[in-house]
Formats: sequence, C-alpha cells, structure tokens
Amino acid sequence: MIKRLCILGVGLIGGSLALALRRAGYVKEVVGSSRNLGHLQRAVELAVIDRFEIDAARAVAGADVIVLAVPLGAMKSVCDQIRASIAEEVVMTDVGSSKGSVVEAVQASFGRLPPSFVPGHPIAGTEKSGVEAAFPELYQGRRVILTPLKTTSDRASRLVRQMWEASGAIVEEMSVEHHDQVLAATSHLPHMLAFGLVDSLVRMGDHDEIFRYAAGGFRDFTRIASSDPVMWRDICVANRRAIIAMLKRYKEDLSMITKAIDRGDGETLLKIFTRAKRARDQFVIG
Amino acid sequence: MIKRLCILGVGLIGGSLALALRRAGYVKEVVGSSRNLGHLQRAVELAVIDRFEIDAARAVAGADVIVLAVPLGAMKSVCDQIRASIAEEVVMTDVGSSKGSVVEAVQASFGRLPPSFVPGHPIAGTEKSGVEAAFPELYQGRRVILTPLKTTSDRASRLVRQMWEASGAIVEEMSVEHHDQVLAATSHLPHMLAFGLVDSLVRMGDHDEIFRYAAGGFRDFTRIASSDPVMWRDICVANRRAIIAMLKRYKEDLSMITKAIDRGDGETLLKIFTRAKRARDQFVIG
Repeated sequence: MIKRLCILGVGLIGGSLALALRRAGYVKEVVGSSRNLGHLQRAVELAVIDRFEIDAARAVAGADVIVLAVPLGAMKSVCDQIRASIAEEVVMTDVGSSKGSVVEAVQASFGRLPPSFVPGHPIAGTEKSGVEAAFPELYQGRRVILTPLKTTSDRASRLVRQMWEASGAIVEEMSVEHHDQVLAATSHLPHMLAFGLVDSLVRMGDHDEIFRYAAGGFRDFTRIASSDPVMWRDICVANRRAIIAMLKRYKEDLSMITKAIDRGDGETLLKIFTRAKRARDQFVIG
Repeated sequence: MIKRLCILGVGLIGGSLALALRRAGYVKEVVGSSRNLGHLQRAVELAVIDRFEIDAARAVAGADVIVLAVPLGAMKSVCDQIRASIAEEVVMTDVGSSKGSVVEAVQASFGRLPPSFVPGHPIAGTEKSGVEAAFPELYQGRRVILTPLKTTSDRASRLVRQMWEASGAIVEEMSVEHHDQVLAATSHLPHMLAFGLVDSLVRMGDHDEIFRYAAGGFRDFTRIASSDPVMWRDICVANRRAIIAMLKRYKEDLSMITKAIDRGDGETLLKIFTRAKRARDQFVIG
C-alpha cells in the first residue's frame, strides 16, 4: 500500500498506472506533475490524479514512491529538478523503454545510483498517447521488466514489484543490457520497419492511390507507425547501440529472402516462411 | 445473375465469393472443384457449394462463369485441364495476387488470350486460409481490381464487374503492370518484412524468451507472418520483379533510418517518423 504516489509525466503509461492502483485500492493519494498545465487539469478531471504541481520538486515532497514517466529525453532534467527534494528512503522507479540510458541519466544527475532506484519497464501501451488514452486495465496480464542494479536495495525492488503486481502485471527481472537487447528485437526494430515502410510508400508519390489498396494486413502491420514520433526519436537515440545491431542482423536476413526471390528459389522461401509462421503461431497469441 | 458458377479451388477467397453471391441471390448453382476431396465435402457441408467434381474439366461443364481460385503456382495446370471443355462465351476470371503471371499462364495454356478472360484480384483476405475460414461478408466494401486485357471483351468485363459488385465489393480497373507494382508495395513487401522479422527472431535462439516480451504492437505487426507459406512462396515467384524492386527501394529507406540512428540524428528521425505517422493516420483507417 502506497500512501502518496508521485507520477512525473501523466500520459498513457503513468496515467494508466495511477488508475490501476487507485482501482485496486493500493494507493491513497496520487500527485501528478508535468510541464503541461492543461494535461494536468485534464488528469484531475479524469480522476487519474488527486492533485498536481507544475514544479516537480514540490510534486515529490512527501511521496513514498516516485514514478518517472517522462519521455526518455527528459529523464536527466527531471532528475536534476527533484534530486535535492527526495529523502534516501523514497523509492524511485521509471517506465522508460530503454534501461541503459535511464541508468546513465540517473547516474549523471545524482552523481551515483541511489539504493532506492529501481529501473523498470512495463511492456504495454498502444499507438495512442496522452492521459486521455489511459485506462486501468492496461497492465492486466502484461509483463513488467525490472532491472535492479547492484546498488539497488531489496526493499526498493520488492516495493516496486508489489506496486506493479497490484496493477495486474506479471513482474520479471533481468539485466539492463539484456532488457535493451530484447526490446530492440521485439519492439524497437518492428517500429523502425513499420515507420520505414509507410515512409517508403509516401516517398513513392501517388499516396492516395497506393494506400487505397492497403487491405487488412497492411492496416495491422502499419498500426505501430501511428505511434508518437517524439517518443520514438527518443528511444532511437537512447537505445542506439542495440537497435543498430538488430537492424544490421535484420538486413542480412532480408537479403537472404531477397536473393531467394531473385533466383526464384521457392524451396528456400518456403522454408523461411514456414519457420516464421510456425514460430508466430506457437509463441504469439492473437 | 449467374446460372451456374464454377469455383476452381474452394478456399477462403473462392468460398467467400460463393457465400456472398448465394446470399445476394446472384447465383443459382455453385459447382466446386479442388484436388482435395475432404475440402470439397466440407464445402458442401458448410453450404458454400451445391456440389463438386474432382475433375476440373467436368466441373466447368455448363458453367456461365468460371473463377480460377487455385494457388498461383497451379494456374497453368488447371487451365490445361479445363481448356478443351469450355465454350468461347464462358466468362473466366481469377483471383490471383499477381496478374502478370496469371496472364502468362493463360497465354501459355490456351496459346492465346481468350476474349472471355478477365484477370481480377480481390484485395481482401485474412491470415487464415481454407474453406472453413470463408464468410459472406469478406468482400463488403473491399476493393476488387480487374485488369482487362486488350483482348478482353466488354461483355466479359461487365459480367465480372457485376459479379463482384453483387458480393459487396468496389470494383476498379488498372493495367496488369500497375496492379503488380501497387500490390508489391502494399501487400507483398509488408509480408516479406513480417516473415523476415519473425524469422530473424527465431534465428536469434531463445525464442521463448524473446517472444514472451512481444506486446500488442508486435502481435499486430507480425500477424501477417501467420499467412500460408505456400501461397506466399507462389506470390514471390509470380511477382518476382516488382517485389525485388520494392525490396531494393525499402532497403535504401531503411538504411537512411539506420544511418540517422547511428549518428544520433534525432532531427532526421523525427522528420521521418512524423511523415510516416501523418500518412498512416490520414490514409489508413483503423
């Protein structure tokens, strides 16, 4: 049970966490902060938060748990703002899609890695963003990855785990490096491919005509290209190394397919497509 | 109104057409043919067809309209089977995802392009296949592209157009070459990217672990990798030239993204992602 939860950045992810914990009766008071007054007022209207402070340093005052839910590019600056105002025992976690960069930002701001800091990442979201899109069931049955550091206290890890479990999530732990590789493969790479495909078609000209023939498969395939461009720019910069490694690997695999098509090698194509279909059907539901 | 419709290849596409036309009262009798007796029996049970013949030559006897709904790789051989059994005025159309290859197959089999032949392609389908997946609403509001040839009679074009309109589709016409380019861009390329992505991840090892963290976006993005591998092998072979051209173009665009990530060029990334999101939001619904 959390007495006062402070959410810095009240969008889809932070807002849905607040809603889930409130519904579960796991939190007494939620204080929000963000640079956008309008968003904060809307968050109060939607009963996502109880009250807000524009000033992040005032928002964290008296909180038991602080959730950094700002864009990856803003992690360092928000840490700079709150650093002087939080006591040693206040648990701090984040929801960033890349963990290495957040750990670096905290280290750079605090000059050390506080024992109460638990890097985290809920594997959930939609192509929508903003507090209006928040809903309490977002984390139901979804995975949340925590990447506790050598410096992280057991108490802080336990508390963050309990918080996410109260929101309905399944919590797992892994290293920062492994998280960043897995996410580059399953999330960052697909987003690059979808953005790249839609942009390829746009640059062909005749958009109207091209997109008119896009059927169901194309709709599903490109849905993630409707995601927030700023967030994805930040992710690309933050998880650069792992994303580049995956893109390189992917291009080699795509070359293999291209060469097989070029030489009319149906046998190789059938092998690749069958292996992919089998894996998709086996491992991914829906 | 069609008196006797003959569907050669009773799967999702041919079966759904039969169901739609029956429901619209646009057809009196539907005769099916396929190499698989079990599928044909199931099609009768599901009231998709009235009766069947294993022998394609017998199936087309007395039909007003023949729909070639067999895999692309089987077009030539099915034409060889029926060629001697169809009168000049019997209208013949197909549903192949690549039009150049079907025109070639008909030309090779008949030794000419019959005036009653109207190449066609319904832009509809799901990642499922087989007659069990057929449903009468599949074509509702979907586009069907006809690519009538110089040799095609107006009467045949009109009849095929009316048939598809009766099934609920919006019918458009374009050239064979243009169809094959548009489809390479909006359907064949995305399928290659999705098959390629899933196969890349499979080959990384640790599938279980990798796929466990695949969230909603990944599910949507890779759904088309559950499509029928044999059908996609055939499409790759049939529309080889246009697919290779699109893959080449796409790889260049992906390299642009890769380079921007590599040099931490957030401005370029933001520009690409924003352009893609805008096009996706504007042109693709859902």
